[in-house]
This record gives sequence, structure tokens and C-alpha cells, in this order.
Amino acid sequence: MEIMMQIPDLTVKHLGAPTIPSPLTGVKFIPENATVIYAKDVNEVEEELKNTGKISAFEAAGPREKIYHDPSWTHAAILTAGGLCPGLNDVIKGLTRTLMLRYNVPIVFGIRYGYQGLNPAFGYEPMLLTPDSVDSIHEDGGTVLGSSRGRQDETIMVETLKRMNIKLLFCIGGDGTLRCAHDIALEVERRGLNISVIGIPKTIDNDINYIDKTFGFETAVYATGPVISAAHNEAKGAPNGIGLIHVMGRDSGFIAAYATLANTHVNYCLIPEDPFSLYDGEHALLPSLERRLKLRKHAVIIVSEGAGQHLFKEDSEKRDKSGNKLHHNIGEFLRDTITSWGKESNIDLTVKYFDPSYLIRSLPSNGTDSVFCEMLAQHAVHCAMAGCTDVVIGHWNDRFTYVPIPVATSSRKKVDIESGLWDSVKSATWKY
Amino acid sequence: MEIMMQIPDLTVKHLGAPTIPSPLTGVKFIPENATVIYAKDVNEVEEELKNTGKISAFEAAGPREKIYHDPSWTHAAILTAGGLCPGLNDVIKGLTRTLMLRYNVPIVFGIRYGYQGLNPAFGYEPMLLTPDSVDSIHEDGGTVLGSSRGRQDETIMVETLKRMNIKLLFCIGGDGTLRCAHDIALEVERRGLNISVIGIPKTIDNDINYIDKTFGFETAVYATGPVISAAHNEAKGAPNGIGLIHVMGRDSGFIAAYATLANTHVNYCLIPEDPFSLYDGEHALLPSLERRLKLRKHAVIIVSEGAGQHLFKEDSEKRDKSGNKLHHNIGEFLRDTITSWGKESNIDLTVKYFDPSYLIRSLPSNGTDSVFCEMLAQHAVHCAMAGCTDVVIGHWNDRFTYVPIPVATSSRKKVDIESGLWDSVKSATWKY
Amino acid sequence: MEIMMQIPDLTVKHLGAPTIPSPLTGVKFIPENATVIYAKDVNEVEEELKNTGKISAFEAAGPREKIYHDPSWTHAAILTAGGLCPGLNDVIKGLTRTLMLRYNVPIVFGIRYGYQGLNPAFGYEPMLLTPDSVDSIHEDGGTVLGSSRGRQDETIMVETLKRMNIKLLFCIGGDGTLRCAHDIALEVERRGLNISVIGIPKTIDNDINYIDKTFGFETAVYATGPVISAAHNEAKGAPNGIGLIHVMGRDSGFIAAYATLANTHVNYCLIPEDPFSLYDGEHALLPSLERRLKLRKHAVIIVSEGAGQHLFKEDSEKRDKSGNKLHHNIGEFLRDTITSWGKESNIDLTVKYFDPSYLIRSLPSNGTDSVFCEMLAQHAVHCAMAGCTDVVIGHWNDRFTYVPIPVATSSRKKVDIESGLWDSVKSATWKY
Amino acid sequence: MEIMMQIPDLTVKHLGAPTIPSPLTGVKFIPENATVIYAKDVNEVEEELKNTGKISAFEAAGPREKIYHDPSWTHAAILTAGGLCPGLNDVIKGLTRTLMLRYNVPIVFGIRYGYQGLNPAFGYEPMLLTPDSVDSIHEDGGTVLGSSRGRQDETIMVETLKRMNIKLLFCIGGDGTLRCAHDIALEVERRGLNISVIGIPKTIDNDINYIDKTFGFETAVYATGPVISAAHNEAKGAPNGIGLIHVMGRDSGFIAAYATLANTHVNYCLIPEDPFSLYDGEHALLPSLERRLKLRKHAVIIVSEGAGQHLFKEDSEKRDKSGNKLHHNIGEFLRDTITSWGKESNIDLTVKYFDPSYLIRSLPSNGTDSVFCEMLAQHAVHCAMAGCTDVVIGHWNDRFTYVPIPVATSSRKKVDIESGLWDSVKSATWKY
Repeated sequence: MEIMMQIPDLTVKHLGAPTIPSPLTGVKFIPENATVIYAKDVNEVEEELKNTGKISAFEAAGPREKIYHDPSWTHAAILTAGGLCPGLNDVIKGLTRTLMLRYNVPIVFGIRYGYQGLNPAFGYEPMLLTPDSVDSIHEDGGTVLGSSRGRQDETIMVETLKRMNIKLLFCIGGDGTLRCAHDIALEVERRGLNISVIGIPKTIDNDINYIDKTFGFETAVYATGPVISAAHNEAKGAPNGIGLIHVMGRDSGFIAAYATLANTHVNYCLIPEDPFSLYDGEHALLPSLERRLKLRKHAVIIVSEGAGQHLFKEDSEKRDKSGNKLHHNIGEFLRDTITSWGKESNIDLTVKYFDPSYLIRSLPSNGTDSVFCEMLAQHAVHCAMAGCTDVVIGHWNDRFTYVPIPVATSSRKKVDIESGLWDSVKSATWKY
Repeated sequence: MEIMMQIPDLTVKHLGAPTIPSPLTGVKFIPENATVIYAKDVNEVEEELKNTGKISAFEAAGPREKIYHDPSWTHAAILTAGGLCPGLNDVIKGLTRTLMLRYNVPIVFGIRYGYQGLNPAFGYEPMLLTPDSVDSIHEDGGTVLGSSRGRQDETIMVETLKRMNIKLLFCIGGDGTLRCAHDIALEVERRGLNISVIGIPKTIDNDINYIDKTFGFETAVYATGPVISAAHNEAKGAPNGIGLIHVMGRDSGFIAAYATLANTHVNYCLIPEDPFSLYDGEHALLPSLERRLKLRKHAVIIVSEGAGQHLFKEDSEKRDKSGNKLHHNIGEFLRDTITSWGKESNIDLTVKYFDPSYLIRSLPSNGTDSVFCEMLAQHAVHCAMAGCTDVVIGHWNDRFTYVPIPVATSSRKKVDIESGLWDSVKSATWKY
Repeated sequence: MEIMMQIPDLTVKHLGAPTIPSPLTGVKFIPENATVIYAKDVNEVEEELKNTGKISAFEAAGPREKIYHDPSWTHAAILTAGGLCPGLNDVIKGLTRTLMLRYNVPIVFGIRYGYQGLNPAFGYEPMLLTPDSVDSIHEDGGTVLGSSRGRQDETIMVETLKRMNIKLLFCIGGDGTLRCAHDIALEVERRGLNISVIGIPKTIDNDINYIDKTFGFETAVYATGPVISAAHNEAKGAPNGIGLIHVMGRDSGFIAAYATLANTHVNYCLIPEDPFSLYDGEHALLPSLERRLKLRKHAVIIVSEGAGQHLFKEDSEKRDKSGNKLHHNIGEFLRDTITSWGKESNIDLTVKYFDPSYLIRSLPSNGTDSVFCEMLAQHAVHCAMAGCTDVVIGHWNDRFTYVPIPVATSSRKKVDIESGLWDSVKSATWKY
Repeated sequence: MEIMMQIPDLTVKHLGAPTIPSPLTGVKFIPENATVIYAKDVNEVEEELKNTGKISAFEAAGPREKIYHDPSWTHAAILTAGGLCPGLNDVIKGLTRTLMLRYNVPIVFGIRYGYQGLNPAFGYEPMLLTPDSVDSIHEDGGTVLGSSRGRQDETIMVETLKRMNIKLLFCIGGDGTLRCAHDIALEVERRGLNISVIGIPKTIDNDINYIDKTFGFETAVYATGPVISAAHNEAKGAPNGIGLIHVMGRDSGFIAAYATLANTHVNYCLIPEDPFSLYDGEHALLPSLERRLKLRKHAVIIVSEGAGQHLFKEDSEKRDKSGNKLHHNIGEFLRDTITSWGKESNIDLTVKYFDPSYLIRSLPSNGTDSVFCEMLAQHAVHCAMAGCTDVVIGHWNDRFTYVPIPVATSSRKKVDIESGLWDSVKSATWKY
């Protein structure tokens, strides 16, 4: 069971012992030692027990009977960084309400435009958030705080936190944002300050390690449904019509894979984790497409932005402000390649190209995705008030968990091409 | 850990040893002994180990290397029974395609109108399902097979199965449907036949035991979003406006609870599990409502159909054809009671009443709910081909599982009012 | 041409001669005598010319080169009364922005809760509306001003207008609201004040005379689409399933008729203008339903709230606060009657009942309906600034018009059962 | 009144005198000489009467008491050509049902893939359409018949019509399609055949002359709403964020103009009819954008594909298969230009680019747009059965009309930048 060997230390940092009685009433507090087991199979647990004498588990999230921060002396701050994601405003609303209405925290700042708002050089005044001012923001996509990419110097930012007397900092963002939050937590530690730095993982790609679900992903998958139907309609609307859809997914193909299962009009699902060839080999795309067009006269293809990078001769060296590598545009490449191939092969085909990226991420969240945001926000507040720091709120085995930031950002989650998920995608796109 | 003591026997019945090589290719088969641990907390596992020497777990779902039914001799049948639920057609499509395209099962019957279709007295001809005929059905709500409530004599139905040479029967339905499937499985056993009876749990209320998630629930929650926004708009549109929403949930308040967290414009969430009083006591509804109207001039209330039944003098004795107790209509009762109370209390209020029930359940499923349906269907086929019987396909700890039908139907899942879920609802509806 | 004889006097009242140059720039002003011809057929025009020497026409709406009110001295007020309707907030936004940004009107009040807000006895402070405060309100249903039913004493209200120095009053509402606006205009005239009273017709039933289109109707029709699909899914989901939909339409069946054509899954469309019998006669509902169930095993019925009132023995005498007669509930009556008839006739049928009323009217407007709201609002401001009064903004022949309030409220528009519209409905619901 | 002088001859061609009694029952037939007046203003009519002694008008659409084609001998065919448009399937359903159920036409062919389906060289078998086969197609976008661009030789196509004994040909398409339909009608005339060729105008750009409304446009405008909200969210989500939306509109800016009024978050609306400069002049885009970013820190821009072509140095010579000129991509040009300008001007801005084209046109139609499709289809059948030919079904003054094909295709309708529509757009995007 080599996989077991790799479980990192899941212990969460605390600023100090929680000694203040929680002001929450009418709630069943979570025991201090509550956990969520990492392993899912009995064999794995037995193996780990045999080898190490213990069972790896996350610290379980939830309200504690004793807290660390005294609410009446506590100022909190919230920031959103990186690209938009459905649910940002739900999280901001949930944080604000839980802090002010349940814990009686008197001041909640909304930091403008990500980490820029913690650098006085930019001159962005923070907003004052109240239950009233956030009452309807969950109905809107985007973020009322604004966002920005990239980081700022942590010494400057910690200075700002100190000056504003902020004891709880909530950073909602992806990999880069969380790494910067970790640096803030280290700087806080260096200075011996008692500021809890809590990460709330935002990745529309659902690719954060040790966390089985992140907010916004569900709404993003939902939003691909009509795009796939549109592509299918266009594909069927012309002889040998091909609907080609380019979706987000820089390093992992979760959106493409889920979208395929969510609207099973997709015939080809191309993701970074499962490289494909165009012309040669058993599963080459174009010969398969030719067979399909002969049988069905139309096809729908979905492709992750990170897929097929091996098809480009030169490696892309460009990066965005968050340090993410900018990929070659595989969607436009496939559109042009299929069109040329059609001409060369004398197949009178047309490619209709769809690139819905921003449309999907700037929606408000909905349904159970919003439920997730609300609960995530509440748990982030419980976590912060208990004095945890350098931690992100995770989710595992249907429960909320605490995950050390370095664990969550150690590497990106990928679609396991030997998993049931990928087998299901292959089954749903079976060619006949 | 008394909760541990109650874990029932989770062993699944098999018709016989699987000896036929699976026709699936390019797939990583699930080991025979793969499991999904029932417990979530390390303490629970350690306690169970200490007491019983074992760790309770579900049999993990997934394709097996050896199967029991020889595909070329296998006929399959699918039926849907009980009320509509988003995703029925996705499941039918997924079953048909997986049976025919991956396992090469030659014949898949669609049984019309639930168990009535297995009773020749009704004269409903079965439909022949093919990948082509089901190609677009996932885009539509309802069920292409039709449904009906109530059961038929299992001896007659097994006779029909035998006559039609059906070896795999998939019954998609709720409690009543699954109990009847169990009776069919017993009759099959009595006669020594080799028919796999597989239940696919359908409950829009998400209230099946030992299964953490059922299809359609997510879409149902999603569909309540606009209704709550509408109720909120109506409430704010008049002085002392009250938007009152009546949602499904006969015995459990999951839809109401999730809907509240999904669109946090709700101020009161009333569910069967947490009885409330109208006039007296600390948390009585009407005095609280009066306070809120004074502060905010509007309110939104959501109520499960099974809530507040204790407020009616006489117990309802009526039952529907599925044997479910018909409740008093708490929605209309509250509408009238609040209106009268307003008049008596000289509060010039108006109640706008919403009862969206059928609107929510007759939608097509969407997004990750459709993903769930597709995977559920595939797993049901893997389960059936492996020769399991008297089993439902469950979901636990982010994995698909097998659950013996009697375990799944032993009692209904309820909202635990000491849980994090209910605490979150109370937090989101905090009065100030 | 007796229809011609009935054209009322379409002359609009003006407070006085417009003498102030319009502050608008870059706009082609509408000539003073611009008109929109009432008749549509050449024969009608020739007949009218022969008989009267003139051609009846509405005054055309649009910006005039000279205006009556001096913007810098002008305060404006907006109120919404009666039930909600999609687009109220669009109209409020359009009015506010056009007044302040184009005409430089310095103060725009939002009157709270309809005419109650003009009666100091209720104590509702007006809101100050600005381009910023209305910037995003068009995204929400309902009305940010609140609404109420019923009227207040016009002498009190005119006193309030005088005290607040309001020169432009915009009343957004239906029949009752417009009649009250007319009374205010008369009171203003009696007192010799120079206040323009402008009605903006709101009727989700689209039943205002001499106006071919009112805002919100299009969104309401759009919103019935998914309800009809849901009813159709439910109907097909059970043997002899009947989906029955009850929609708004107190006196006229426009919503039901349009909904039928908008989603042609409807098989029976019942409206007030075309009385139907249940049991006897050539087109009786129940025998026809029996024939349809035999052929197709399901049916979808849509019924206006004002339809079939002749089937009740006693006349309803109840009225709502706006003075509208409260009808017997034909939807519930049909549901119960069809269910009983099924039992008596030994047809094993089920009726699934849908009553989406508030759901439809509390939506935000969308698409071309929002376009209509924005243009309507702009024209209302042009009309008011030009010094017109006692007038509503209408629409005819694809242009905006001015209609004297008494003309618009003289009687309600009905579905002409000899028209192309009703013939189209009959064609779309043809039984075979 | 020079505008009057330009009214072309609106007389419609007929194959011969209608002598057969219509089989329609329960319908009020339209008089033979029913008309819809072209002019809207009394002055225009009086001027025309003075100058010419007559009033120009369209022939009114509607069922006639006598028809030309004997239904029992009549075969009909329907084809769709050019790009997709919401509502194609509604029209196909409406045509099929009206032909078969009301006129008892025995055979309705669905021609595959536009005019290619009338050329035997392509080998596309026609579909047989029946009320059953079209029952649910209105729920789907696209066209069940398939479409293609370009024309075929009319002598070959008329040969096919003759061979298939088709007497009624319905061609649903845009400019190019209608011109080809005209050529078919001429060829039919040359050969002395009695085939009615009826055009049904399809242009998502709503740019057909002498027709005030075409199907699909309303749904297209509706579909831009969420895109504009998304662009607005993205714009507000970053410092100096700019949401840039590229929409259809090759020669006319109706979609952009209506979209702006439909979701008034748009700040700049750029259309072909109102050329703009980038850097210099009073209304230059970039200086204005700079002012707005200073004040509001975000902006939303919508641009028609045909706008700003004067900004490109070289004229585009490319054309698509329908002969439409392929424009330079103004959307991508603006995206890049604004980004560069930002860098040069030291404004730290980000442009988020949206190009939703196919997403908008492949939707199913909804609401009143579907109503329009159903009525349009019915009128097309009435028109065909009456023996008209070389005619399109138009709409004017809230009524359906007949328009000779050459009149409808003589030139394209444009946004009149002196009209109320464009003034409204300017008002809604007023900068302050």
C-alpha cells in the first residue's frame, strides 16, 4: 500500500490554547479530537495500522466549546484574489453574518482587489461589511470586493493588518493566493502576532489536493450543460457538423470530464491527463472522427485548455500574473486542424467553435453549490475563532475538515485515468 | 459508541460465483474485496475494532473482472415507479447504453408504468430501448417509461420476467418500489431462478438510510432558488409582506434545509424534525415574526410538507397508493393562520403563498446531478452483471456502494437537529 | 364600419404651452403633430375619411424640441401600486436615469408602498433615487419602492405633492392605479397647480384598451414555458395523466392563449372569453378529454383564473383591496371535477395541478421586455417634461403613443374569439 | 414626403384564382381585400392620398374562404437553409400540423440540409413529417431537418419538386435562401407549373426590409442578458476591468442595440450604422473610456461584428458560402487595441472578452418568440393554400402580411441612427 506511505502530516497550527467560552448557543460543539479518516477502504486502514499503529485523519471542522480569540476585541478582514468563481459572494456573506451575528465580532473589513488592498501603495480603502450590506450579494456573480492577480510583499501586508488591528484574515483564492496566505502566516509567526490566517480554497478546476470538493465547480459544470446542447444543435444542423467546446482546466480535466457526464451529447472528451494523438495509433482522434461522421453525420468534442499541449512544437513560456503557465490554445488549434484535415480528406465538414470560459465562472452559484459556500464560510469562522492558522477549510468524506495550507498547495489534483470517473467518461462516450 | 453497535449486516446477496470474464476493456477492475468504510471518525473505528475486531464497510461498487451473467444470453428490463424525480431519463439512458454498448447485452426492455407493466392484466406492451432511442432523453424531465404508484403481485411479475427471459431487472424508485423489488428477489430465490434484481434509489427527499446522496435532490434544491427569490420579491413588495413556501419533505426536512442554505433570503425554516409552536414558548413562530416585521417589514418562511403536523387536532389517516401517509396541508394552514393572526394583532400584513411541488420534480436533472445519474446507472449495470441481487446502488464517502435492499428500506433518514447541517441552517436564519 | 364610430377622443391634456428649449442634445426631436394611426386596414381609413373627414390617431410619443417644465426647478416622484409585474425596477431605473442624466432634474423621489406613501398618516419616508442607487435594480424582480393595493384620498395626496414641490408624478400601475392617478390629475387641475401626472400602464394580463402591449406580459408568457413542460412531463409520467395549469387572467385570457402558442404541448386552452361546457354539447370538455386519453393517454390543460365562472352556482361577491372581483377558483374546481369524473367513468386517471401565479409575476423582466421597459420609461419622461398630464404611455403599431387615462381605463381588452390569435390557439390545440 | 415615393409595389403573385372551398371550420375568414397600411403617421397617409390617390398597404395574411390547391392532391415540402436561428423547429412543427391537421394535406416532406436536399447528387433522403414526429421538436434548438449554406441549380431543384409531386414549398431562410426561392418560383413560372413557393424569413439580425419583426431575434436578445451580466461581473471583479462582448450583426446593429436596452449594464454600444473613432474627436472611444474608468473603475462594451470595419486598413474580400462578406474581427481587434492602449497610457486595465455567437442562435425559441413562430407557420400555410407564390410572410403593425420576395430582399434594414431606438440606446449608455 505505497499510497498510504505518502500521507503528509495533517496537523493544523494553532495560535495558542483556546480558553474563552464560545458565545454560540443551541449548538452541539464538536469534540476537540474529532477527525475525518483519510482512507476509504478497510484494507488501507488495516495496512496503515499494521505499519504505523495509527490511522491518518484530518482534524474535523466545526464549532468548538472554547475559542481563542475574544470576539469583542476581534476585527476581521476578508479578501478575494485570482480569477472569478461562482460563490465568492456567498462566502463573503456567510463569513460576515457568522462573524457578526453569531460571534458578535464588531468589525468586518472587506479588502478591495485582493492582496493589493493590503498594500497602502494602491490606495484602495477597505469596505465595511455588515449583515445589511451583504444581504443580497449572494444573488450576484463576481465578487463585491473585487479581485486581482499576483501577490504583495508580506511584510507590508502584515504591517497593514497590525495597523488595522485585524486578528482574523480570510483569504479566498487558489494556489497562488493560498501560498501567499501561508507567507503571511509565517510573517505573523515571525513577529509573534496573534493573527489567524485562514484560506478558503477557490478553484473552479476542483484541483486542490486533499480536498474532494471546492465551491463553484458544481455551478461551472451546470453551466456547461446549455453550451453542450448548443454545440450538439449546431453539429446536427449541418452535414458533418462538429461542435467543439473549449473549457477551463489548465492542469486537470475535471470540468471537461464532469461536463461530459452531465450532458451526454459529448462524443469526445480530451483532457491533459490522457494524451491523445491526432492521426496515428489505435485511438487517434481524426480517424475515429471520420468513422463517427460516416455513421452519425455529426460529432461533439470537448477539450480542456491544458489538453494536447504535446501537439505543439514549442513549449509555451508565457505566464500570467499569478504565475500560471499560459498554454497554447488547443481549442483554436483543433478547430483549424480539423477544418484543414476535412479539406484534405474531402469530407465536407464544418466546425462550430465554442469558448465559454468567462461565462461559466462569473455566474452566481446555485443550489447545493451555494449550500456548500454557506457552510464553508461558517466553518471558516469557527476555525478562525478557535485560533487555528495557516490552514484551509477542506471537505472530505462528506464532512468539512482543516488542512494545513502547505499540504493543500503541495501539488495539484488530477483526473486519475484509472479511476471510476474516467472509466465512466469513456463509457458515456463509447463509439459504436 | 452505541451508534456503532447498530450497524446492520451490510453483506450483499449474490446469485452465484462470477466465473465469466468481463467483456470490458481498457478499465481497471475493482478488487473483489474492495470496501467503503462506514465510520468517518478515527475514534469510531478504533472503538469498533476493540469491540468486534472488525471495521464495518459497504461493498464497493465498480466493474469486476469476472461476471456472473453471460451477456449474450441476457435480457434486461428497466422500470420506474412512484413520483417523478429529476434524472430518471438519465438513469434509463445510462443503463441502456452501458448494457448494450459495453456489455453487449442484446435486449433491453423498458417496462411501462412501473410494476403495472409487469402485470399482463394491464396490457402495457414493453418498449425496446436502444442507444439510438435513448440518445436525447436525458434532456427531458419525467420518465419515458411512464410510472405508476403501488405494487403488483410478485408471483405474477416473476412469471412475466421468466416468460420474457429477463435476467436483469432494474427497479428505479423509492421505499415502496424497493420493498416490492425485495419481494420479487425473494420470489426469484424461492423459485431458484437466476434473475438479478437491482434497486436504484429514487427519493427527491434524499431520505434513504445508509446512502448519503440520491439523484434528483441536487436539482430539486437548485429549483427552489428562483422560488425563494420570488417569495422574497413578493415579501418586500408590500408592507409587512410574508413569502411562504411549501416544499416537499414528508418525513424529513432535507429539501427545506438545503433550500434555506442555497438561497439565504429565507428567515424561517420549518421541518418535521424540529417541532415548533405558534404562539407560546421561547422560539414560537408568531411572536418572532412580529419582531422581525417590526425591524425589517418583510419575512420569508419555508416549510416542509411534514412539518407542524402536531398543530392539527386530528391525525390524518389518509394514505396514497404507495402507502405513504397523507399529511394535513401545513402550508395552507400557516397561510390562513398567519393571515388571521395579523388581523387579530392589527398588523397589516399580506401572505403570498408558493407551492412549487410538481414544478421541482418534473425538471430534467442538471450538472453534477446528471453526472451522478450517469455513474449510478453504470454502477448498477456492473452490479447486476456480477450477479448481485436484492441490492440497491448506494453512495458513501464519495464512492458508489452496494447496500442490501432491507438495510436501505429499514427506516428513513432524517435531519439530525444536533448536526452541523441544522446548525448551519439556524446560523443562516439568525434573527437580529 | 361601426367599429370606427366608437373611437373615442384621443386628445391629450397639456398643462400649458411648452416654451422652454429641451436640454437634450444629439437627438432628432419628434414634430409636434406626429401621430400613430389607429386603423390598420385601408378600408377602415377610407371609411372614416368619408364619414368624418379625418383619420383617428394617437399623439406620437417622443422628445419634443420645446418643453413645459423647467428642469432645474423640477422635482419628480415615482410610485408603484397594485400587484408585482416583471419590469417594475427597469421602469424605475429608466425614469430616474432619464430625468437626472438627460434632463438634469435634480431630485427624484421614490414613493414607498404605492399611494400609501403619499399619505403622511402611514409615515413612510420617500427614498431618494439616483443613477447610482438604481444602477443594478433592473436585475431584480419586484419593486424597490414597495407597492400596495387600494387608493388614498386625492386631496391629501395632492397636498403632499405640493409640500414636496413635486412637478412630475409617475404612477406605475393597473386600472385602479390609473383611475386614482386621473383623480389626482383632476384635483391638480381644480387647484390650478402645474403638476404632470403620468400613468405607466402595468398589467401582466395585457388587457388595457387602446394599448397593444404592456410591460411584463412577455416575461410572464416566457415564464409559463417551463411550467407547461413540467405539466407535460407529469402528464406523460402516469397512465392517463392530466397536467392542469391555472394561470392569471381575471377578465381576459391573453396569458393562457399566448402560453398555449408559446409551448405547444397544451391540448386545451380555457379562457373567460370562450365559455365551455363540461359534459354536454359538441365541444364539451370531459367527453373530448376521454377521447384524447384513449388516443394519447395524457393531456395538458391550461385555464385562466377568470374562465368557467358560469359553472359555479353562486356569483362571487368578494373583491380585493383594488376593487377587483375575486373569482371562484376554477383551477381547483376543474382538478376536483376531473378527478371525480374519472372515478365515475372508471378511467384510472391522475390530475397534477400547477398554480404558478406569483412565480410568474415576481421575476425580473428579460430580453425585449426589458427593452420595452427602458423605452417606455424614457418616453414617459419626454411626455412629462413636455407638460402633458392625465395621460398614460401607450404602444400602437410598433410606436409609443400618448393615451388619455380615461380612454385607457374605459374598459378592458379581451381576447377576440373571432381573431387570428384565437384561431391560432385552436389550430395549435387541434384534436385528432 | 419623398419617403412615400419609394414604397415599392407590394402586390403579391398568385398561381391562379382560388376556387376551392377551404376545409377550415369555426374560423372567421379574412376578406380577400384585407390590408395592413404601410404608413404610421396621418400626415404620411394624407400626403400619399394627395399625390397618388391611394394608400400603400400590404396584403393581410390569414385564412381565405376559397383556396387554390386541392388539399387531397397536395404534397408539401419544408426546408431550412443558412445559419441556425431560435425557432426553426417551432416553424417546422407549426407548418406540419397546420398542413396535415387543418388542411388535411396527406404528405409533408422534410427536405434535408437546405437546398442540397433538393439536389439528388447529394443523396439525402427526405424525412416524412407527421404530427407525431414533430410533437416535441419545439423544445429543441437547431433544426431537425439540418441546414446548409449556398444554393443549388433551380432547374435541378424544380425537377425534383415535380418528380416528388410537391405543390407547396416552404423555404425557411435569410436573404440568400429567399433569393434562391425566388429563382425557383421564376423557374416554376417558366415551366407553367402550379407550385407555390413560400419564403419564411429567418434572420437573427432582424434586418429584413418591410418586415418589422422576424423570429429568433427576441430569443437572441434574451440570450445576451446573462452574457452582459457576466461581462459586468468580470469588469467589476478587477481594477479597471473591461467586459467586451462581440455579438452578431453583420450589417445592422439591432442585436447590439436591443441587448444594450435589455440589460442596461452596457456602457458603450458600437454598431455598423454609427461609425466611431478610437482616439480622436468628440466621441472617440478610448478617451471616453479613460474618463469612465477614472470615475467608475469598470466598463462594459458591446460591439456588433460589422461595426468599426473602417478601422481596418485593408478591405476584407472573403465571403462565406452564402455570399456574405466575411468581416475583420472587430471584437478581437478592440480587445488587443484596448489592452495595448492601456499599457501605453499606464492604465492597469484588464479586458475580458466574450464572443457568444453560436450560443445565442442554437437555443430553442421561447415565450412570445415561440408564439410568433407558431402563428407565422400557420399563416404561411394559409398563404400557400390560397395559391400565392414568390412571397414571404411578413409582419407589420402587429399583423401578419404578405410581402413579394423581391421587395423583402431588395436591401437590408439598418438601425436608423436618428430614430427613437438609437436615441434610447444613447440615453441608456449616457456617460456621467
